Amino acid sequence: MESTETVREVATRAKRAARDLRLLTRDQKDDALRVIAQRLKAEKEYISVENAKDLEVARGNGTSEALIDRLTLNGPRIEAIANALIDVASLPDPVGEVIRGYTLPNGLQVRQVRVPLGVVGMIYEARPNVTVDAAGLCLKSGNAALLRGSSSAFNTNTALVDVMRKALVEVGITSDAIALVPGQTHESVTELMQARGLVDVLIPRGGASLIQSVVNNSLVPVIETGVGNCHVYVDKDANLEMAVDIVLNSKTQRVSVCNAAETLLVHQDVADVFLPMLFKEFKERSVTVHGDQAMNDFAQSSGLEWAPVTDEDWAAEYYSLDIAAGVVPSVDAAIEHILSWTSGHTEAIVSDNAPTIAYFTAAMDSAAVMVNASTRFTDGGEFGFGAEIGISTQKLHARGPMGLTELTSTTFVVTGNGHTRA
Amino acid sequence: MESTETVREVATRAKRAARDLRLLTRDQKDDALRVIAQRLKAEKEYISVENAKDLEVARGNGTSEALIDRLTLNGPRIEAIANALIDVASLPDPVGEVIRGYTLPNGLQVRQVRVPLGVVGMIYEARPNVTVDAAGLCLKSGNAALLRGSSSAFNTNTALVDVMRKALVEVGITSDAIALVPGQTHESVTELMQARGLVDVLIPRGGASLIQSVVNNSLVPVIETGVGNCHVYVDKDANLEMAVDIVLNSKTQRVSVCNAAETLLVHQDVADVFLPMLFKEFKERSVTVHGDQAMNDFAQSSGLEWAPVTDEDWAAEYYSLDIAAGVVPSVDAAIEHILSWTSGHTEAIVSDNAPTIAYFTAAMDSAAVMVNASTRFTDGGEFGFGAEIGISTQKLHARGPMGLTELTSTTFVVTGNGHTRA
Repeated sequence: MESTETVREVATRAKRAARDLRLLTRDQKDDALRVIAQRLKAEKEYISVENAKDLEVARGNGTSEALIDRLTLNGPRIEAIANALIDVASLPDPVGEVIRGYTLPNGLQVRQVRVPLGVVGMIYEARPNVTVDAAGLCLKSGNAALLRGSSSAFNTNTALVDVMRKALVEVGITSDAIALVPGQTHESVTELMQARGLVDVLIPRGGASLIQSVVNNSLVPVIETGVGNCHVYVDKDANLEMAVDIVLNSKTQRVSVCNAAETLLVHQDVADVFLPMLFKEFKERSVTVHGDQAMNDFAQSSGLEWAPVTDEDWAAEYYSLDIAAGVVPSVDAAIEHILSWTSGHTEAIVSDNAPTIAYFTAAMDSAAVMVNASTRFTDGGEFGFGAEIGISTQKLHARGPMGLTELTSTTFVVTGNGHTRA
Repeated sequence: MESTETVREVATRAKRAARDLRLLTRDQKDDALRVIAQRLKAEKEYISVENAKDLEVARGNGTSEALIDRLTLNGPRIEAIANALIDVASLPDPVGEVIRGYTLPNGLQVRQVRVPLGVVGMIYEARPNVTVDAAGLCLKSGNAALLRGSSSAFNTNTALVDVMRKALVEVGITSDAIALVPGQTHESVTELMQARGLVDVLIPRGGASLIQSVVNNSLVPVIETGVGNCHVYVDKDANLEMAVDIVLNSKTQRVSVCNAAETLLVHQDVADVFLPMLFKEFKERSVTVHGDQAMNDFAQSSGLEWAPVTDEDWAAEYYSLDIAAGVVPSVDAAIEHILSWTSGHTEAIVSDNAPTIAYFTAAMDSAAVMVNASTRFTDGGEFGFGAEIGISTQKLHARGPMGLTELTSTTFVVTGNGHTRA
């Protein structure tokens, strides 16, 4: 079932489809999402059979059980993916929103209106649910979706896209609105990155090396996502019981995610009291501390696993029960450390001191700053966006969790009655 | 006066300066802008002497009088540049603006707040006023400015930056907030484009080849500016006298700018009446028509200069008294033509038919759509932004005229009282 089309051909057809998509009403888009959901549910059997082929190859390659699990699509999972599309249908349409509007002294009426981006390219790793999630969010925001999933999910993704495209045709929308990038080699990713003028934005989702490779090589504008070296700073004026809860939740509630904490900084004035409280909990959860001298003294007396902290640790996204940790003399030292090492995702402060909170918050240069809350809240779902296409860690266009709004651009519509410039 | 610092060193110091700039109050920034304006006025003599050195070299190189004029800074021009800074001081501060704010069901307070981008790199051609304009807009929006002007303006730019930096020190702001990129070779542009992580955005301003080179080679995110192949479509339901005014103004009011019209499309039903009206005016202004057969027949009988239109013409930004022109059978044909050839800057429709206007407007994929108004209105000043750093023709981050707001990113500030994720 290998396609003979080139990436440019598929992208050209997606660009053409995008012309139609920008004219669809909300009703038409929501109808399409609901019909796609129905068809995915109706084709559970077919999708599962195709998924089984990928799973067999993966097992043959000795893939880890964790990855096999991420790759698996069974009945209940297909049901959940389809239901997520129905949820997207119930969200407001971002297209057409007027974000600025005013009348100039000369009578010209200026409106800045949200419009679709055009063609959105997604490059992502194993999880096949992204295929449907991304297609749904692109459709709702009036964009054509060009999907380049992992080759390990090729049969699954082909089946999912096949079902979605047939559903589009059923509701009278061109099937080119959702397409898989042809080809399973790295070549096809390269071609996608060179399709400037056809593809309007590339969103890579996956490991740091995938994202860096796209950022460094793409001629198409990229939205960088998801790399998280998140910090928690426990201030001298922190409520220490609250601080224990927040550090534990940030570090241990789910370790494999970008909004988990990777570094802990504690003000020296509270270290004596706070660290024994925290490390008792760390010990129960088998957290390993990569600490400076002060930290490691406390870690040792609490019976924790510990190691001397290195520059690699300060920079690390462990995605494991490890944490880099240091005692700092001041909030300024904490700020200095974070600005030097952060990936710009999420930082948290635990403090009851209002001026300290205001100063820390203003000094940070990250997508999100949590005040007396866990870093784990940086998430489109938690923020009430209803859906998330990724978490941007760059500063241009979108920063932080990206929902439907972030899949739009704007156009200035200016209305006169014969206005000319003097 | 060649610097021995590398681009990376200067960028590193700019990044450090940006940490301080983001903490400045509006008062501090406005004070600094006013003091810079005073000092520029006080140093008119010094700046003029340095400018004379550049002018002498330029004349020696046989530079055209038009370019010499763009390069010239005399007393009144320095006064005007300084006064523009005082105008920027009176604009609202974009930093700190809350663009979304709400309380989640769990009590978490979410605010999305405008923050500076950090370090803004500008690469631009001859006009030395950009040196001061860009520095002022960056300062007001809390960003450090890294300026890479034309080598033909090196002495002038060095003098301007020198005066601005001394003024910053006077008001207690680090002089690294405004810096010239060292080095006059292309090498220094390359180093700037590679300074990812130090420079947050590059904004090229100038000719199409400069902009394309930066877009294709930069690892730092780029905002593409100013390339304009703007279209005017005269509908069958146009007020034809209005249409003459709008086409004339769009094409001839100022030909050397990106928001001037380069292509005219006329509905066939009104060609017979409209084109003789228009071409009478074109003849008086010596406009040359590059037309299809129908257009050229009218051009010839009106005594205009004309030539058969080629694909190069449909794509051209003439920046001259030339216009590509075609007669179209329908609004759909006009839309199809524009979507095929536009650079995405500004398109205009002249029509009194509301459904046609709505359809045309929705179908366009450009930064601005003018309804019954001249394309020349796409401009930060005309839009009431008070200042403009360029006109973006890309879809991400900013599209259309960019003012202070477009020099910001956002941070989500989330406030809880011990919130953890379940």
